[in-house]
Amino acid sequence: MNDAKVLLDYGSGGRASHRLIGELLLRHFRSPELARLNDAAVLDLRGPVAVSTDSFTVDPIFFPGGDIGSLAVHGTVNDVAMLGARPLYLTCALILEEGLPMADLERIVASLGQAADAAGVAVVTGDTKVMPRGQADKIFINTTGIGQIMVATPPSGDRARPGDAILVSGSMGDHGLTILSQREGLAFDAPVESDSACLSHLILKLLEALPDIHVLRDPTRGGLATTLNEIAGQSRAGCLIEESSLPVKQAVKAGCSFLGLDPLYLANEGKFICILPEAQADAALSILRADPLGKDAARIGTVTAENPGKVVMRTPLGGHRMLSMLEGEQLPRIC
Amino acid sequence: MNDAKVLLDYGSGGRASHRLIGELLLRHFRSPELARLNDAAVLDLRGPVAVSTDSFTVDPIFFPGGDIGSLAVHGTVNDVAMLGARPLYLTCALILEEGLPMADLERIVASLGQAADAAGVAVVTGDTKVMPRGQADKIFINTTGIGQIMVATPPSGDRARPGDAILVSGSMGDHGLTILSQREGLAFDAPVESDSACLSHLILKLLEALPDIHVLRDPTRGGLATTLNEIAGQSRAGCLIEESSLPVKQAVKAGCSFLGLDPLYLANEGKFICILPEAQADAALSILRADPLGKDAARIGTVTAENPGKVVMRTPLGGHRMLSMLEGEQLPRIC
Repeated sequence: MNDAKVLLDYGSGGRASHRLIGELLLRHFRSPELARLNDAAVLDLRGPVAVSTDSFTVDPIFFPGGDIGSLAVHGTVNDVAMLGARPLYLTCALILEEGLPMADLERIVASLGQAADAAGVAVVTGDTKVMPRGQADKIFINTTGIGQIMVATPPSGDRARPGDAILVSGSMGDHGLTILSQREGLAFDAPVESDSACLSHLILKLLEALPDIHVLRDPTRGGLATTLNEIAGQSRAGCLIEESSLPVKQAVKAGCSFLGLDPLYLANEGKFICILPEAQADAALSILRADPLGKDAARIGTVTAENPGKVVMRTPLGGHRMLSMLEGEQLPRIC
Repeated sequence: MNDAKVLLDYGSGGRASHRLIGELLLRHFRSPELARLNDAAVLDLRGPVAVSTDSFTVDPIFFPGGDIGSLAVHGTVNDVAMLGARPLYLTCALILEEGLPMADLERIVASLGQAADAAGVAVVTGDTKVMPRGQADKIFINTTGIGQIMVATPPSGDRARPGDAILVSGSMGDHGLTILSQREGLAFDAPVESDSACLSHLILKLLEALPDIHVLRDPTRGGLATTLNEIAGQSRAGCLIEESSLPVKQAVKAGCSFLGLDPLYLANEGKFICILPEAQADAALSILRADPLGKDAARIGTVTAENPGKVVMRTPLGGHRMLSMLEGEQLPRIC
């Protein structure tokens, strides 16, 4: 495209929309189904299917460790994988603000295309709307992911059972702290970086060895504390967490302490919670730690019959503290 | 919900988000899969599947004949149906502006739920983001629709063949003129109303009788002229249209003439183009006209070997006029 900025015409459905598709989107989303240019895609799917949708509105749109394009792939692909599914297809709907620099749009679209390739998903259909200046902020991306479920009984938030072990695949709070520090223009001694990553290959490796995993869930908005509360509520069981075993990077601890934030309520975009029978916990940890994305995996607690619907954290001194869901909004536009 | 307006918290992923889901969304989207509250839905699908996504940003959000909620169902369900599929599932992702009146949100969500029920689709998973005031305009809705393909060879924009008949299911331009007149605060003698409607039952009725329909496409953004150009391009054939046979309501004609608009470039949200072998044209017209949504159906032209990739309109006086794709943006935020 020769224009320096996104024009209102790009959303008209007319000639400018077709140029945007032909000259930019099809170049970065190399998918035969998309190239057929129908308003819908035909997919060959057999058997039970997992579907997830998310709109991404993160601010800033570029940040250490990623951008809104790669995040829009990782966030949705991970949600599909958490159901024990292999992500296969992605839809991509862009809402652009008139005047967005074309260079930014191209960088985001290229990043989205690369992340989709790396995740093994094809962008099969899409949509572009352009909003007059001031009626949207730069770019919002919706992706819907579709995958084929690979296990007989999909993991689900209501399947945590007393006695189950609670693991996390890595350190908590990296994405949330990164976005916040970028927005506030803060620089820390030790730089922090978003953990945004595609988790599906690691999830599938885990499920292949241990098909009876009860719950898989990524602690995104609201962080670990909120996500564990969701699981406790859905499963009508308690979660008992050991504070000393929670993996949090030193730089994230320091940044949180400076800003008065709790890393347990900060969003993660490349980590997951895994809840499974106690006897399989060690095997799961070995598989996780053998992968770069799971190298800091840890067992952080146990599902209990006591305190159903609640999350309790044991402090290093032996005290107990109730972890409630996130109250209020710690940080808008985190993802 | 007791709040009068949408708060930033509703998008936090924390307690307020859960209240929004529990107290508002689950009440209007009655779907067991949604009620399981996982981040993704498990769907039972067999065989080839059609998928389509669209973001809706229409302004105003309420208009004669519909609102952004019902439009978000009709637009996506229709795109799925155009591939010869029975729409079954819908995802729903909301981007809300902080301060949106809760009464407006509830009215939109209720309308979306009712439209989904009427269309026979279940809302199976969703997402809500809230933008700080001024960073989005009131409400944007993304829906992704999934359906089961019911025919051996799905209709597709590249299957128009010379000699095929070109039909439309009803009058052109109603939705576009309605939105524009609302936005400009214009009142016409004869009121106009959006044609926003779910077309899937009519499409399926048609395909059951005539499974060899070549192309089905709804002329939304860019209108009939742009959509026919897309089909001509994909099929590498020409389209010859008879101006005198184009159904346009008197009130739309009058409004367009007053505003200097061409109804052939205005969006429709409850109409479709049907291209099929000449010998089946009369049977298709009978089926269409027997349905309230197709009562004004008309045969408007023929696919030609001449002028491949182009659309030519024959005027009542026998002249010929080339109809190109929409150039520029006639009207942003039309859908």
